[in-house]
Amino acid sequence: MYHSKHFSQIFIVYLKKKPKRIYCYLTHSTNHTMKYTFFFLTLMFFYACLPTNQTEKTMIPSNTKTTEFALVIHGGAGTILKENMTPELEKQYHNKLRDALLTGYNILENGGTSIDAVEATIMLMEDSPLFNAGKGAVFTNDGHNELDASFMDGATQNAGAVGGVRHVKNPIQAARAVLEKSKHVMLTGAGADAFAKSQGIEMVDTSYFYTERRWKSLQNAKRKEGGNSLILSEDDNYKYGTVGAAALDKSGNLAAGTSTGGMTNKRYGRIGDSPIIGAGTYANNATCAVSSTGHGEYFMRYLVAYDISARMEYAGEPLEKAADMVINDKLKAKGGSGGVIAIDKYGNIAMPFNTAGMYRGYVKADGAVKTFLYKSSE
Amino acid sequence: MYHSKHFSQIFIVYLKKKPKRIYCYLTHSTNHTMKYTFFFLTLMFFYACLPTNQTEKTMIPSNTKTTEFALVIHGGAGTILKENMTPELEKQYHNKLRDALLTGYNILENGGTSIDAVEATIMLMEDSPLFNAGKGAVFTNDGHNELDASFMDGATQNAGAVGGVRHVKNPIQAARAVLEKSKHVMLTGAGADAFAKSQGIEMVDTSYFYTERRWKSLQNAKRKEGGNSLILSEDDNYKYGTVGAAALDKSGNLAAGTSTGGMTNKRYGRIGDSPIIGAGTYANNATCAVSSTGHGEYFMRYLVAYDISARMEYAGEPLEKAADMVINDKLKAKGGSGGVIAIDKYGNIAMPFNTAGMYRGYVKADGAVKTFLYKSSE
Repeated sequence: MYHSKHFSQIFIVYLKKKPKRIYCYLTHSTNHTMKYTFFFLTLMFFYACLPTNQTEKTMIPSNTKTTEFALVIHGGAGTILKENMTPELEKQYHNKLRDALLTGYNILENGGTSIDAVEATIMLMEDSPLFNAGKGAVFTNDGHNELDASFMDGATQNAGAVGGVRHVKNPIQAARAVLEKSKHVMLTGAGADAFAKSQGIEMVDTSYFYTERRWKSLQNAKRKEGGNSLILSEDDNYKYGTVGAAALDKSGNLAAGTSTGGMTNKRYGRIGDSPIIGAGTYANNATCAVSSTGHGEYFMRYLVAYDISARMEYAGEPLEKAADMVINDKLKAKGGSGGVIAIDKYGNIAMPFNTAGMYRGYVKADGAVKTFLYKSSE
Repeated sequence: MYHSKHFSQIFIVYLKKKPKRIYCYLTHSTNHTMKYTFFFLTLMFFYACLPTNQTEKTMIPSNTKTTEFALVIHGGAGTILKENMTPELEKQYHNKLRDALLTGYNILENGGTSIDAVEATIMLMEDSPLFNAGKGAVFTNDGHNELDASFMDGATQNAGAVGGVRHVKNPIQAARAVLEKSKHVMLTGAGADAFAKSQGIEMVDTSYFYTERRWKSLQNAKRKEGGNSLILSEDDNYKYGTVGAAALDKSGNLAAGTSTGGMTNKRYGRIGDSPIIGAGTYANNATCAVSSTGHGEYFMRYLVAYDISARMEYAGEPLEKAADMVINDKLKAKGGSGGVIAIDKYGNIAMPFNTAGMYRGYVKADGAVKTFLYKSSE
């Protein structure tokens, strides 16, 4: 028969890298009867016509809820190498990450909201001099500490951020107040401090933020800079140390927050990605919650946090792939260094980074706390 | 024959709303021979297997370059109604939009860059008291003018922004300087003024920004507010008036910029969407260039400018559909009012808004200048 001579073996090649495209190759053979060929062709036709999302769901087991709640945090990405660490310092980081995770875990386990968990977790890291946020914030060029933070509620997509506050003990509290108590998304400078004060948030004298370690970092940065006042140091260590958290609560609500002291030796009222919704922080119950850390300018230009959500929403990518593509493909290719922590509505967690290390960890409903500092799982 | 009894008429229904999915319906008939049925089925199979992008390209004639260069601008969206206008004021807006478009047109026509065209076009609008930017900026709660602007280069995806400057005559120039001369994306407050000054940009006394009309608006806003210091007036007219431009030059490079005086009666160092990359401004040669105007808080939470690009990149939507979906579907459903002007790499232009009116216009290589104020094409 004419047809059985021309179409008898059909191979469907499903290319993983382009899940929306199905390529068909027909080859020639005369060994099969018309009947079987036709039946097979029909089956393949149906397969090709399946809605692509459905196909993806079959392919991606991550699209099922695996935990009742979960929390993921970071304490900054950068040149974090084992050879530069002491066992004592390693232990301090692991312990502080663990404390932060357990603080959030207890809230979530008791039915608390993802917003409460994110705030309490970040406050604990802000209060530690180990991280570049709150108490451990770096110094600006003129010797001040100017703090940025942002918060987003995945259920309402309301958001709040403060930029350049100098007196708020825990900037993440101020960001939450902007989210919940004002019609605005972003307040800056002395105005943001005044707003926080009006909301009864704890204010401190600027001396509270002094730490010898950060003061020395500023002196080092100034020395290296050698009087070039326009360009900040390229040294990785001046850029990182932001803290952030993202959580899924028992009600299925996502939230994310980020807090930072910014860049050592920064000037001109520079604002990085941390207080920018879509760059430093993003949350949407329909997709994911993300907090970023890294070279802020790249994260702002490439809208890193929102980009992960957009890839999930518009390209149907699962969280892990979307986060990995943005950090290790797109951002890396452009020279942008850093990482994100992210969680989706199923409780899946992603923590990609393209630097030597990232202080990070997570805990799910089973209560097993995992913390990491370097590339390898240590 | 068995097969011809069960599969003979095949209808491919290509649903426009879900272009990535092809639904197949098989109905029963005995009138056709095996031969034709089989051949038709095979053809349909091939059709179903076409990469979806290719299918879309066939469907969307807008994906071909229609002009060598083009420029699109806005002067703010809001409650712009014919009944509130005088013929004289209408004429002033049309003329100013026309002047701005011709300024940019001359640059592009002579082979100038999209960046130069966007800057010159916006400067002309900043210098006019008709718009809420530069000379026509609104007043903050404490009687100052705090100006925001941002700029993005679609070729490099470099970006620059200033927030809350008080002495820069043309904030769009300062945003361009941040883009081109600093390693940062966003500078704020007195630091941003100092940076602009260091770059030789024209500085003015704060009295330059005084206009009687805007001063009266502040007094009205304060009166209406009645002492509630946390929540700004909901009156539409206090939110709008931002200016922006997006251009495609002869080299195929896109650029976009936005400049604003923000919200009348604003306080607490409130920053809106205009200086936020991805919310107020976005440009990427691979997709589009966008400038936003409207209720800034919504534009920040929904990353309006970048969202249009993301829909084009990840969902394969053409510019017009992507811009319309974001403004008239997504944003409107959330209660966010405003609009955007956008241009893609083919020179296609979109100017959707969900308010009563938007000052807007465009010009393409043919030199025909089009300007509009209201919903209808007037």
